[in-house]
Amino acid sequence: MNKKKLVHLIRELSSCLCVGLDTDLAKIPQKLYEEKDPVFAFNKDIIDATRPYAVAYKLNLAFYESLGPEGWHSFEKTVKYIGQDRFIIADAKRGDIGNTAAKYASTFFERYNCHAVTLNPYMGLDTVEPFLDYKDKWSIILACTSNPGAKDFEKLDVGGEALYLKIVKKFRDFTTSDQVMFVVGATQPQELRLIREAATDFFFLVPGVGAQGGSVEEVMKAAQTKDVGLLINSSRSIIYASQGEDYKEAAAQSALELQSKMAPFIAQ
Amino acid sequence: MNKKKLVHLIRELSSCLCVGLDTDLAKIPQKLYEEKDPVFAFNKDIIDATRPYAVAYKLNLAFYESLGPEGWHSFEKTVKYIGQDRFIIADAKRGDIGNTAAKYASTFFERYNCHAVTLNPYMGLDTVEPFLDYKDKWSIILACTSNPGAKDFEKLDVGGEALYLKIVKKFRDFTTSDQVMFVVGATQPQELRLIREAATDFFFLVPGVGAQGGSVEEVMKAAQTKDVGLLINSSRSIIYASQGEDYKEAAAQSALELQSKMAPFIAQ
Repeated sequence: MNKKKLVHLIRELSSCLCVGLDTDLAKIPQKLYEEKDPVFAFNKDIIDATRPYAVAYKLNLAFYESLGPEGWHSFEKTVKYIGQDRFIIADAKRGDIGNTAAKYASTFFERYNCHAVTLNPYMGLDTVEPFLDYKDKWSIILACTSNPGAKDFEKLDVGGEALYLKIVKKFRDFTTSDQVMFVVGATQPQELRLIREAATDFFFLVPGVGAQGGSVEEVMKAAQTKDVGLLINSSRSIIYASQGEDYKEAAAQSALELQSKMAPFIAQ
Repeated sequence: MNKKKLVHLIRELSSCLCVGLDTDLAKIPQKLYEEKDPVFAFNKDIIDATRPYAVAYKLNLAFYESLGPEGWHSFEKTVKYIGQDRFIIADAKRGDIGNTAAKYASTFFERYNCHAVTLNPYMGLDTVEPFLDYKDKWSIILACTSNPGAKDFEKLDVGGEALYLKIVKKFRDFTTSDQVMFVVGATQPQELRLIREAATDFFFLVPGVGAQGGSVEEVMKAAQTKDVGLLINSSRSIIYASQGEDYKEAAAQSALELQSKMAPFIAQ
């Protein structure tokens, strides 16, 4: 999906909501255990419930991988079920080089037909190179994350600016905003502003709204661009909004609430 | 496998060789395509050929993942075939936090029964926490890697010392050498020395010997400890030593050559 289509989708739904499918077998309604593929059955219900409000879905690979080869089948079926009219992110946080990175790129972009994959920049620019060979596919680089550990290394001072900012500038100069986005946590409003100043036309993937305490309004105010330029992710607060029989309705309601907070900011 | 057993194994074989099973379907002998699981068949042959000379095997997940769910079956069968008397590393370079990191830990340590997993430290100390809950299992933290891109961020100056050194010291103080190792490229002899000074009793996993040009002797001289303290990895120069019918013999020969360079350094 190219940038133009993504922006169009965001305006069409008045939403920049990304729903995180961190589907944990231990947390889904017990009645789904009767299904042949409980994880896929759950995802299907969540996708149906949230599709009117969500422009993107993010699948955290750790949850699928932990189920063994079967988990990868659930992943594949889920990506197909979402369909190509929503932006699909493989939240893999991969980071490797040369022939290894090329394998990861072909896995997520060709085999599974995801639009984007999250990447860890630590090993350098060559981490991302093989991913850039794919037109209309995206690399989403970890910049400043929403966890407490972000202070350990990401925020270290490197010659007068934080490491995460150094990284953003390097990728900004080396790539384009048609193929690269940055991960910036919603719990980091100051960092959102600083990174937006440095990367004016890049999309940000913003986790940390909901369960982790970030606010949609603050994020929109700090980092929105004329193209909106944001995908705001919520996982647990949507998919586990209720662990009862009403989990579908609760997920829809939770997604609608977030979308309603975004809509006023998204000019028609 | 605990540190004592690993050191014993190294002394027993007079070897600190790790064989990297970066098995690429496109590069294995064509006759193996007739096998039900060509990747596993190839790995089995390589393991049989190199077992006398190798204390460890490292499986690069990108290569297995790229084959879809089948690749994970090949991975699992390979780990079982290696057996628990060799040190088994899942080269996954994962890096995530909290509940996600816990999923990765259970995947590699419980489901697949690997001894170690490689981790990317960028997101902070909380990246490693869930892995430390497993006794006699290891987290191998990327410090200074062997690729050209290592200069982009890993070597940035952070208040008078390189970022990779800052990371090593932080993990050194936060963990113990019974559960944590560091990745340091063989192509970085100066960095090997600096990291050894900072982390005197930690094991290093050293890639970059062979195809990437690093030398066994230089690595041993720069960073060996009284417990040896090194696992030196070679992948392509062993597993693809020959792409002809004699691939097994060539792999054995290549592994033996590397082991022979290590033996004089490993005091009995």
